[in-house]
Amino acid sequence: MSMSSESHPITAIDSRRAWECPWYAVRQDRILLPNGSEGVYNVVELPDAAWVVPVTTSGEIVLLRHYRYPLQRWIWELPAGSVEPGGSAEETARRELREEAGGKAAAWHLLLKSATMKGVGTEWAHLFLATGVTLGATAHEPAEVLTVHRFPAAEVLRMARAGEIEDAISVLALLLAEAHLG
Amino acid sequence: MSMSSESHPITAIDSRRAWECPWYAVRQDRILLPNGSEGVYNVVELPDAAWVVPVTTSGEIVLLRHYRYPLQRWIWELPAGSVEPGGSAEETARRELREEAGGKAAAWHLLLKSATMKGVGTEWAHLFLATGVTLGATAHEPAEVLTVHRFPAAEVLRMARAGEIEDAISVLALLLAEAHLG
Repeated sequence: MSMSSESHPITAIDSRRAWECPWYAVRQDRILLPNGSEGVYNVVELPDAAWVVPVTTSGEIVLLRHYRYPLQRWIWELPAGSVEPGGSAEETARRELREEAGGKAAAWHLLLKSATMKGVGTEWAHLFLATGVTLGATAHEPAEVLTVHRFPAAEVLRMARAGEIEDAISVLALLLAEAHLG
Repeated sequence: MSMSSESHPITAIDSRRAWECPWYAVRQDRILLPNGSEGVYNVVELPDAAWVVPVTTSGEIVLLRHYRYPLQRWIWELPAGSVEPGGSAEETARRELREEAGGKAAAWHLLLKSATMKGVGTEWAHLFLATGVTLGATAHEPAEVLTVHRFPAAEVLRMARAGEIEDAISVLALLLAEAHLG
């Protein structure tokens, strides 16, 4: 293609922190557009995050039933969480599997790295397949209102395609994992 | 399950608009957790959005090469955009196909409705398959820096699985569309 992947047709003239909380921030940039006009771009600055498709030693998939306050509803989803400062996506995947689901895996495989908020924010999702998973005790934070469940893999894939798993990135991870399931 | 889908174990005590811009806002809620403690939850309030898998009359899939400022890179993605006040997801899908790709479809099919930011925000993605698509003139806004391309469907699905399409929701829509492609 004629466009280089390295070219940056929109550039920042100025940048300031518009708002922040302990979990994310909004950066407000004054930008220069290709037509020479100026604009404002507000970028939600989020760390990367990891999602885990946990397949147990008996071939079941672990799902969480999680109350998601922003959606005001209980949804089915995979263990997932944000990368902490200095941490890696794979460490995060191991931690979330352990803390949210009480799980430990024999093997890990990166399925995909993909942007979740392309027009709005900076988050990249790292999607992992975890196999040989065994379940033990969980370690939930007070704001994590969830329970741990396991279903046959075929049933979870049916739920994903039917819209019964309402977290889009969980559905993506499950569809990508399908090719790896026996 | 014992948990009702209607139960709301985290409730708002108080709510205020913490920050806003023309495209989204942050709502800061003081919340009551199930253990009786109080906390703060900052919710990014975004309207719903629509993504379109456009399949042309000759069976190709239309992709955009779009410069995404929050990611500081060019990515491959599907036509997509936010629902405007009073609009519907299907109207939005038609509009984005027309404005971003110059496309018009003979038939529409809803593939999935799914939450894109479960822990952080309110956005629901409506994923559509558009078939019988013909391409004409585009109508890009100055901040939309993109070009329109078309590839054989099998090549687009390969790109999606290989991580070459870096928008997670576009990859999800393409994997769901696969079952509908001839």
